[in-house]
Amino acid sequence: MDIKEVKKNAKERMKEFCILCPECNGRWCAGKVPGMGGAVSGGSFQRAFDKLKEVKIAMRTLHSVVDPKLECNFFGENLSFPAMIAPITGTKFNMGGYVTDEEYSNDVVLGAVDAGTIAMIGDTGDPNCFQVGIEAIKKADGKGIAIIKPRENSEIIKRIKIAEEAGAIAVGVDVDGAGLVTMKLFGQPVGPKSLDDLKTIISSTKLPFIVKGILTVDEAKLCVEAGAYAIVVSNHGGRCLNETFAPAEVLKDIAAAVGNDIVILADGAIREGIDILKYLALGADAVLIGRPIIWGSIGGRQEGVKITLDTLKSQLYQGMILSGADDVNNSKTFSRILCTK
Amino acid sequence: MDIKEVKKNAKERMKEFCILCPECNGRWCAGKVPGMGGAVSGGSFQRAFDKLKEVKIAMRTLHSVVDPKLECNFFGENLSFPAMIAPITGTKFNMGGYVTDEEYSNDVVLGAVDAGTIAMIGDTGDPNCFQVGIEAIKKADGKGIAIIKPRENSEIIKRIKIAEEAGAIAVGVDVDGAGLVTMKLFGQPVGPKSLDDLKTIISSTKLPFIVKGILTVDEAKLCVEAGAYAIVVSNHGGRCLNETFAPAEVLKDIAAAVGNDIVILADGAIREGIDILKYLALGADAVLIGRPIIWGSIGGRQEGVKITLDTLKSQLYQGMILSGADDVNNSKTFSRILCTK
Amino acid sequence: MDIKEVKKNAKERMKEFCILCPECNGRWCAGKVPGMGGAVSGGSFQRAFDKLKEVKIAMRTLHSVVDPKLECNFFGENLSFPAMIAPITGTKFNMGGYVTDEEYSNDVVLGAVDAGTIAMIGDTGDPNCFQVGIEAIKKADGKGIAIIKPRENSEIIKRIKIAEEAGAIAVGVDVDGAGLVTMKLFGQPVGPKSLDDLKTIISSTKLPFIVKGILTVDEAKLCVEAGAYAIVVSNHGGRCLNETFAPAEVLKDIAAAVGNDIVILADGAIREGIDILKYLALGADAVLIGRPIIWGSIGGRQEGVKITLDTLKSQLYQGMILSGADDVNNSKTFSRILCTK
Amino acid sequence: MDIKEVKKNAKERMKEFCILCPECNGRWCAGKVPGMGGAVSGGSFQRAFDKLKEVKIAMRTLHSVVDPKLECNFFGENLSFPAMIAPITGTKFNMGGYVTDEEYSNDVVLGAVDAGTIAMIGDTGDPNCFQVGIEAIKKADGKGIAIIKPRENSEIIKRIKIAEEAGAIAVGVDVDGAGLVTMKLFGQPVGPKSLDDLKTIISSTKLPFIVKGILTVDEAKLCVEAGAYAIVVSNHGGRCLNETFAPAEVLKDIAAAVGNDIVILADGAIREGIDILKYLALGADAVLIGRPIIWGSIGGRQEGVKITLDTLKSQLYQGMILSGADDVNNSKTFSRILCTK
Repeated sequence: MDIKEVKKNAKERMKEFCILCPECNGRWCAGKVPGMGGAVSGGSFQRAFDKLKEVKIAMRTLHSVVDPKLECNFFGENLSFPAMIAPITGTKFNMGGYVTDEEYSNDVVLGAVDAGTIAMIGDTGDPNCFQVGIEAIKKADGKGIAIIKPRENSEIIKRIKIAEEAGAIAVGVDVDGAGLVTMKLFGQPVGPKSLDDLKTIISSTKLPFIVKGILTVDEAKLCVEAGAYAIVVSNHGGRCLNETFAPAEVLKDIAAAVGNDIVILADGAIREGIDILKYLALGADAVLIGRPIIWGSIGGRQEGVKITLDTLKSQLYQGMILSGADDVNNSKTFSRILCTK
Repeated sequence: MDIKEVKKNAKERMKEFCILCPECNGRWCAGKVPGMGGAVSGGSFQRAFDKLKEVKIAMRTLHSVVDPKLECNFFGENLSFPAMIAPITGTKFNMGGYVTDEEYSNDVVLGAVDAGTIAMIGDTGDPNCFQVGIEAIKKADGKGIAIIKPRENSEIIKRIKIAEEAGAIAVGVDVDGAGLVTMKLFGQPVGPKSLDDLKTIISSTKLPFIVKGILTVDEAKLCVEAGAYAIVVSNHGGRCLNETFAPAEVLKDIAAAVGNDIVILADGAIREGIDILKYLALGADAVLIGRPIIWGSIGGRQEGVKITLDTLKSQLYQGMILSGADDVNNSKTFSRILCTK
Repeated sequence: MDIKEVKKNAKERMKEFCILCPECNGRWCAGKVPGMGGAVSGGSFQRAFDKLKEVKIAMRTLHSVVDPKLECNFFGENLSFPAMIAPITGTKFNMGGYVTDEEYSNDVVLGAVDAGTIAMIGDTGDPNCFQVGIEAIKKADGKGIAIIKPRENSEIIKRIKIAEEAGAIAVGVDVDGAGLVTMKLFGQPVGPKSLDDLKTIISSTKLPFIVKGILTVDEAKLCVEAGAYAIVVSNHGGRCLNETFAPAEVLKDIAAAVGNDIVILADGAIREGIDILKYLALGADAVLIGRPIIWGSIGGRQEGVKITLDTLKSQLYQGMILSGADDVNNSKTFSRILCTK
Repeated sequence: MDIKEVKKNAKERMKEFCILCPECNGRWCAGKVPGMGGAVSGGSFQRAFDKLKEVKIAMRTLHSVVDPKLECNFFGENLSFPAMIAPITGTKFNMGGYVTDEEYSNDVVLGAVDAGTIAMIGDTGDPNCFQVGIEAIKKADGKGIAIIKPRENSEIIKRIKIAEEAGAIAVGVDVDGAGLVTMKLFGQPVGPKSLDDLKTIISSTKLPFIVKGILTVDEAKLCVEAGAYAIVVSNHGGRCLNETFAPAEVLKDIAAAVGNDIVILADGAIREGIDILKYLALGADAVLIGRPIIWGSIGGRQEGVKITLDTLKSQLYQGMILSGADDVNNSKTFSRILCTK
């Protein structure tokens, strides 16, 4: 199996949920939520793609970077390259149901470990989703991260404990889920979190804590103040607030403001290795991969996830040679290889 | 009935007048006047859409806005959210005739009241249109606003009196109708209005007076000087002057100039709740909704209008949570959540 | 017959030469020379369209311009509005041959007079084209202008004499024809003109002299120095030098430099009356119309030309009301109604 | 045979490898490597096209440039115009196999000589490709240039000797091939080159040495320091590093920095003569032609290559008349005819 076969399979199996467009830019699937698209008009998904596309990498080949270093360490884990898997749930209504949430969780958590990295598992209104994610993390001897919806503090802390017991290496909350007004109807209210809320939650655990869904400098600073270990600069694949900014257009300012104080992860519209290099050059320490991993799981299951990650890793490796980027741990020096127009 | 069904019905019933494009941006319907499109090349409709699209909303979820306030008061009326229905006439030649002007007027005026807000009714060469609008306002116990074409002053004042008798809560003139040279042929000349004209008209009534169709700072100031209660920053859905500016690109300057002196309404290309938030953040106090209301009436009649408004309200509510906007009455503080590129 | 019928007829009769695209922007016909398109990649045609599209007109209706004045005088002739017909030849290989060059010349020269304005007739390698143009001017009692290719000076002067004898009201040279290397093969060399060449040619006649095809400030100044009566800011419909500038993007600077010293005409991508207003607001005194006139002649012959001009005139009239432009002779004050982004 | 026939033939013969799109912009063929497209998403190919398209040439016809001079001298050879053929290999997997690499090499080397210019031949994992290129240069009495992949220094020097023996007029390395990680698998490792590497290689030969694949000012300066005769500002047709810059957007700065110290060649998205003029005006001394030459060889073999070059030459000649560019050897004065927006 290779990446072409993985994608071919995924295309056949996802039917009208995703047609793997030649350019995966959020146009075809605009508004398909549930589904694979961005919310409402798809504006935030499209923005994530378009703004990342505006970032270009300077090619340089007159140097001595013959074998760039991709290995890095996050949350105490050695990773083969600075990319993790984004938390995703709802295989049935979002992806068409070729895999169950349990199968998907296993594919991504174990596939990530196979590729030398780590997956995040997600949370949703259906309690089964979080549970099967936790089970997958257990199978992987704890090599996984649990991301919890911005529920009431007590509910979050309850799930953090479950993750701790599963041996997870980190936990977090995707605060951009605050607007899921439908979860309230099912007796599972979510909402925005104050600084005090964050402090309460973070102080409840010794695990590194991640705040996912930051797009402004002021909220990035709040995360530092609250004692978070990492933020994810993300617009949630365009699926929360429509018509908001792209990670690629706010990342540089956020990195300038808090880059020395907190780990910065970023996601959004990563389709090839060079996109990872863009985010690193803009100031991220590592990235999360979303939709391509769905194709990996559906198109090739656990092996497909590994193949997808390996392909990205190989493209990143080549991109670093061609831009003279020597070591992902020096990403703060990468800005010279980058230009945003 | 839900919003999807309303739109599905509308699509079937409007046939070649409107195909409810995935993105309602004025391209397909360019030049369809009569019809649903923008005048001539459709440039003004498209500009209204494109410039609103360039405005983005900063997502913020680390705050305490768990239940933002949408209620507001305009023209002495409590509204459930800051959106009213724009004045539209000509159901037969503009929309394909599935509803009559009488039915449409009732749908929008009563549907607006059902959703806790207010509709404007319009004026045109066919005197029946204004009449059925007035009748609908009467049915709603006066909860409606009459917008009159820029006819000769005496003709305007005559219609203001009719609106007063119907108990309307406000009246106005859509001055951008000044170029309807065909109305002259039917003995109903329209034209531009001087400051003196405006003063004469406004002094003829005790009702709050609205000037609809302002796109420049200097004319916004003239409206303040003339004693108007409100302006509508609008390019009339692109149906008057082709190739003019978009409301979204002039609103900020107008709000800076007269925002403390007059109520600022705005319309143009609002398709979802977040678009309302954009206009508020740009400086509007409230907005008008146009084409989506037509789909509401044709796709679900009075109930369809209510569903359309409720959907927008719910999206605005969610958008306020996700941007930390606490109260529509504080819209002058919303500028921090906004960026125009 | 009305403008819709004219266009419908033209579409049927021009077949694969022109399909009257909903938006006539030079994409479909790119490279169709001979034909109706722009040269090579069509870049100059497209640029003319795109840059004019970027210019927008501020709508204003709070003023006293109830009946704007369109009448003006150029070359000693009273015109009903500031638009003339651009010189065009080659009906067979450029337009598909529904009309002959003789028929076309009569249509445009006489149709222009019917609409209260003036046509220019053109010159090409086939001497018949110039001849039938001159004959048409004679039929119109001299109400026409002869534009001659940049041949050798003596050949130009010979043709100026012919135009003088026909009673033409002005003559000119389209200097942007300098690159027609094929004309050399037929023993009719064309080429660039030096300042001395221009002086020699201009001093040979007492008729007002027009230099057509100016896109830079320095060449506009040369025309003033040479004693020309008018320039045409034009990229020749994109048919001479591919990938050059658009008239709409250079006009403002040219008008600022020589607007008080010479009459400035402009052409390129005018499709509706508001486009004329754009050029006036950018600094032109009057404009030339090209492709729409071809549709007029083929779609409705002499009457079609008149209908096309009347439609543009009516749209310009409406546009002036809606922007507060009072008199085309005050076009130098129109800049406030304009904004180029 | 003319250029239209050449292209028509090529379209038929290349089948799904290239469909000769009306606008050859890298969209249709995105990711087709092997094939004719740009790597991965095709971003670098598209950027090369788009940024060149943004450059426009000022038309000027009031001057005395009636017969501009195109002849020039590079590497001691008189060329009929400042355009050479870019090194290309892999006719089977990249172009569909209508011609073999041997046939292609002969077509381009001999066809270039027929048109009064010079071709470069390339290097790849298959040693036959370089060999047939060298043979073609021999047939042309040395009138050709050998471009070698960035192999180990000793391997490069070995091939330089082979080129010297064939009488080649110059040699070079396309350093942007440094990321071809697959070549390592075949025991032919390639990689970036340090300044010392470059010095070692350049000092091994008395032939003029070309570094192909420069996109930054700092690497252009390194080439000067290393003693190179020429650089090629190029992103390799978008086939090496995806999402890098376009030659047209970096050329001006590079020319400003090293234009007096080294010969500057450039390539990327040249489709017509005016594109050559753009690169000259941006600061290049001469250009390389890529994809159109492939069409020439496949569509008309050696004659097709000559026709393609002659067409470009004729268009450049016409473009120089229409912009007042007198002599390609004065290209450093061309900047006044250019504007990048």
